[in-house]
Amino acid sequence: MSSKLKLFAGATAIAAASFALPALAQEETIIDLTTATGVSPATQEIFNTLLFLIGGFLVMWMAAGFAMLEMGLVRKKNASMQGLKNIALYSVGGIMFWFTGYNLMYSGVDGGFMGTFGPYVFPGPGLDDGSAGYSVASDWFFQMVFCATTASIVSGTVAERIKFWPFIIFTVILTGILYPITGSWEWGAGWLDGMGFSDFAGSTLVHSVGGWAALAGAIVLGPRAGKYSPDGTVNPMPGSNIPLAVLGTFILWLGWFGFNGGSQLALGSIADAGDVSKIFVNTNLAAAAGAVVAMILLQIIYKKVDVTMVLNGALAGLVSITAEPLTPTVPMALFIGGIGGVIVVLVVPLLDKLKIDDVVGAIPVHLVAGIWGTFIVAATNSDASYGVQLIGIVAIGAFTFIASLIVWFILKAIMGIRVSPEEEADGLDKSEVGVEAYPEFM
Amino acid sequence: MSSKLKLFAGATAIAAASFALPALAQEETIIDLTTATGVSPATQEIFNTLLFLIGGFLVMWMAAGFAMLEMGLVRKKNASMQGLKNIALYSVGGIMFWFTGYNLMYSGVDGGFMGTFGPYVFPGPGLDDGSAGYSVASDWFFQMVFCATTASIVSGTVAERIKFWPFIIFTVILTGILYPITGSWEWGAGWLDGMGFSDFAGSTLVHSVGGWAALAGAIVLGPRAGKYSPDGTVNPMPGSNIPLAVLGTFILWLGWFGFNGGSQLALGSIADAGDVSKIFVNTNLAAAAGAVVAMILLQIIYKKVDVTMVLNGALAGLVSITAEPLTPTVPMALFIGGIGGVIVVLVVPLLDKLKIDDVVGAIPVHLVAGIWGTFIVAATNSDASYGVQLIGIVAIGAFTFIASLIVWFILKAIMGIRVSPEEEADGLDKSEVGVEAYPEFM
Amino acid sequence: MSSKLKLFAGATAIAAASFALPALAQEETIIDLTTATGVSPATQEIFNTLLFLIGGFLVMWMAAGFAMLEMGLVRKKNASMQGLKNIALYSVGGIMFWFTGYNLMYSGVDGGFMGTFGPYVFPGPGLDDGSAGYSVASDWFFQMVFCATTASIVSGTVAERIKFWPFIIFTVILTGILYPITGSWEWGAGWLDGMGFSDFAGSTLVHSVGGWAALAGAIVLGPRAGKYSPDGTVNPMPGSNIPLAVLGTFILWLGWFGFNGGSQLALGSIADAGDVSKIFVNTNLAAAAGAVVAMILLQIIYKKVDVTMVLNGALAGLVSITAEPLTPTVPMALFIGGIGGVIVVLVVPLLDKLKIDDVVGAIPVHLVAGIWGTFIVAATNSDASYGVQLIGIVAIGAFTFIASLIVWFILKAIMGIRVSPEEEADGLDKSEVGVEAYPEFM
Repeated sequence: MSSKLKLFAGATAIAAASFALPALAQEETIIDLTTATGVSPATQEIFNTLLFLIGGFLVMWMAAGFAMLEMGLVRKKNASMQGLKNIALYSVGGIMFWFTGYNLMYSGVDGGFMGTFGPYVFPGPGLDDGSAGYSVASDWFFQMVFCATTASIVSGTVAERIKFWPFIIFTVILTGILYPITGSWEWGAGWLDGMGFSDFAGSTLVHSVGGWAALAGAIVLGPRAGKYSPDGTVNPMPGSNIPLAVLGTFILWLGWFGFNGGSQLALGSIADAGDVSKIFVNTNLAAAAGAVVAMILLQIIYKKVDVTMVLNGALAGLVSITAEPLTPTVPMALFIGGIGGVIVVLVVPLLDKLKIDDVVGAIPVHLVAGIWGTFIVAATNSDASYGVQLIGIVAIGAFTFIASLIVWFILKAIMGIRVSPEEEADGLDKSEVGVEAYPEFM
Repeated sequence: MSSKLKLFAGATAIAAASFALPALAQEETIIDLTTATGVSPATQEIFNTLLFLIGGFLVMWMAAGFAMLEMGLVRKKNASMQGLKNIALYSVGGIMFWFTGYNLMYSGVDGGFMGTFGPYVFPGPGLDDGSAGYSVASDWFFQMVFCATTASIVSGTVAERIKFWPFIIFTVILTGILYPITGSWEWGAGWLDGMGFSDFAGSTLVHSVGGWAALAGAIVLGPRAGKYSPDGTVNPMPGSNIPLAVLGTFILWLGWFGFNGGSQLALGSIADAGDVSKIFVNTNLAAAAGAVVAMILLQIIYKKVDVTMVLNGALAGLVSITAEPLTPTVPMALFIGGIGGVIVVLVVPLLDKLKIDDVVGAIPVHLVAGIWGTFIVAATNSDASYGVQLIGIVAIGAFTFIASLIVWFILKAIMGIRVSPEEEADGLDKSEVGVEAYPEFM
Repeated sequence: MSSKLKLFAGATAIAAASFALPALAQEETIIDLTTATGVSPATQEIFNTLLFLIGGFLVMWMAAGFAMLEMGLVRKKNASMQGLKNIALYSVGGIMFWFTGYNLMYSGVDGGFMGTFGPYVFPGPGLDDGSAGYSVASDWFFQMVFCATTASIVSGTVAERIKFWPFIIFTVILTGILYPITGSWEWGAGWLDGMGFSDFAGSTLVHSVGGWAALAGAIVLGPRAGKYSPDGTVNPMPGSNIPLAVLGTFILWLGWFGFNGGSQLALGSIADAGDVSKIFVNTNLAAAAGAVVAMILLQIIYKKVDVTMVLNGALAGLVSITAEPLTPTVPMALFIGGIGGVIVVLVVPLLDKLKIDDVVGAIPVHLVAGIWGTFIVAATNSDASYGVQLIGIVAIGAFTFIASLIVWFILKAIMGIRVSPEEEADGLDKSEVGVEAYPEFM
């Protein structure tokens, strides 16, 4: 942050100088609030804080987006459970990010592999002095909602067959330990940051991490009963409520302005305000391109335009631009997001061939498009190199995938992670929630 | 507000002083825009106004949250009516808060029991001069959405059996007279404020007031037909659309950042920005704790995790922290919110034992958790005392409950407040709205 | 914008003056950050940019509102298609506004009839210098979401029978050419602006334009099969999911604070902040009046309160106040919005008499209330005259209606715009999307 703060000598200097006029020859030390860069430090700090708060509540809103998307794409016998999991994971993720996550990710990483253990301690009322360039509580809030996003990604993939409590325990570990560790490598100024890895808002740090954890879960869990016939046939299990999925996508799209725009981390100068604005534009157009490219491909390949694939196309466009939403020109942003749309259309059937059952398509959207977006940063950001981007992608992927596999296996061994075949057939809403999502609808 | 404004002697003083250098010995009168407190008064006023506007639109959004929560938790034959009531009450509440509410609550209370009667008059274009420290229209907007929230609370409890127009008339009285009167006691600088009562964002002034009005309504109306068998059995009438209830809860959670954060009433200094940020953090974690505690208790007691109770747990956590979201440390915020979760799990069945039929659980969430949150302020805010908190809780509760009872009884006597048994059996959507919520779903 | 910027001589002047004390006699040239107007230019530019970004994301959210409203008001066999169209039109609209729209609307109009052709080129990172008084990317984003709104209006009217791809091609032309051309006449400083036409946030430029395009589409398409019997009977085709329509309306209402408030185009002075606040108040109360007036009229005329008409009443109130949300007093805002409610109640049946099949009521809400709102500007804004308002209404209406008719006819001739009777009977979800909205609900 400090590099973004403009330094002025200040009014006290004026006063002092007024006693000794010759000192005023140093004109450059005078506050110049009439020029484009003239924003007082305190005003800058309030703007920066406000960006975190607005960005933060928009990203918090993405938790609702995931909930709607997932409740729309599961079968109705599992919709209450999907709602429960989403409220639960957002709650648990927030508490864990306070309890261990934030300090593990940001305190004392110093070029290394993780920070310190222990709960984060906030300043008391009136004591958040802005010396960081922003309110530390606003920063914590903003980082917390990113952490929760990662857990949201997992819940969609493993839906309709995972038990509630093991999922919650996995969420505790993911949000309290795994996400903060890889996060510390880059955003905590750890070893990857030192190498020059670049991931502006988290195509890898958030989305791929969620995707890898989800993939590990899908593998350990196995597919839903009946999804793949022994002869290899894929049996579609269509989502029960498409309008909810549409709503969820619009919510996520809206929230992404906070996700990417807030990741500028500063709004206290004209340059920062302009960059946040450019990020809004690129974010929006990459999503649009993802949706449009998916539409066109679907029409060509299938002669019908499956709306759920178009929704995922938009989301893949968003994930793709997340690693670098600032430097691309518009045509480049459209290209980056458009490839996201291609990824969705091609990878969804591919996963089915591999019999990996990803209920909502989170793996193509968050993992594969996340890799794409991270890699292609080097095309537009001269500070990034393809080689280092690959190192980051592989290192974070390997750590998260292996650690997640281990956690899922341990949970499976200790308490089981999958409901019984009878419970799965009846739906989780009956067996674990006790509340049907639509009790009056046959 | 004035106490929050930093005072500077100003640039004119610099100019004047420059003619008479000795005056500059009073260095502390110089604008110091380079320090943490250096925000010009006009900039402060814009920040303060912006906080009201952002906080205001977030709280307005809570009206949608209540609508979704309630449409999700009623049976489908009453869902259109619930939507109608929510659009109607937000509309009526806004108009009444202009017509009588604002002045009754804020104008000339002077330590007394109410303000003045009459519509609020806004400054014309360009004439809102910020001399209050913010735009008066932004303040009005922010206070108006709080008033509407109170009415939203009532509509959930009395759902599925109340007639539309008597409900609207009650809303007129609640938002135009009752809420503003008790509001004037504290936020209008009336007698309770003079005693030192403390209710930061309205655990009592908004939530308990809504809860008391709802309780009075539930008592006068009686339970829904068939809810309680003569032998005392409680017959569950499950909500028709759980995903909507989940959506409503997420909307309310999002809106609450505006509700509590905006109640700081100022964003124009680093200290205020830091406090708003801390409020976001505590608000979020109290909600999270309410949800998590409810989850755990439900698993222990019932072996299933009823998602609607978890949603209400989160909401009760939010209500609990609303009376003091700033002073608690995180562990304390988790405790305060967590008890909210306990309240929901214990009080929902208790109300059923008392045969008080609260369709959406608004009484435990808003009334009981509101009392808890108001009382416990004294544990973290040294300016508050348990005794005065109790006085405020009892005084506002007694006034609102008795006045509401009287209004409900008068409405019952004059025009009847309950639909006929046949209409109730058919659903209000047929009898009063003429539009079924889901006509193509059997 | 430049007229809104306060001019200060600046701190450099102080420094210079300090060498030559007599110059300080020009006290008015000194920065005066301690008074109500003391906001440094850079701070102003950040505030202005922030207004565009917040206003922009709120208006973007309206795209979700239209999607929900329309998915709720169509029959369930067409709900997936309606979701698809809404995601698609928002995506296509954004890309087209970059590709041709923005420059056609804003570049080099100079009192004429359109701007220049060609994609908009954004400044690179850090190069958006604020010399316009705001970030140009933030302005582009804000204008883009307005353009997309226009397309959203069309999709509701022509629902349930239009083919997907012709609709998309129409959207390309509407957002890339038609909307920008008429937009340039006023907001691009074209001929209508020169005449003194006044349309603050777009009752005509956005809402009526969408309404005219929709009306042309409805005429060329013809009504849905079975909507009007040969004997003139109107057969109701009730919306399938009223809670979604309620949600959509609340979303639109929320988004409208950005639509109207953001159209102040500046937040960098106390006067602007006050005006934005006043706009929030008037916008809210006009919507409230539209809803309340519709409720009362419906009760009187039909003895039932059709919630979908109340929702449209609120929306018509919003459209009505959009042409001038700043100058009306509250009673006048209530009157303007209330007439919007009257329009909905009267015009919806009128269209049915004319056998114009407007599935969601977009023509009364956006076209007719848009005309009303634009006309009545002259009653409160002394810079406007009824005559010029009529010229603008007629000119923009004639251009858009005729151009839209031509485009619809060409599309009809080339590729057909209506699905086959069998496809219409089966629903578009089956024939064109391949995904049913509610596959598990009978």
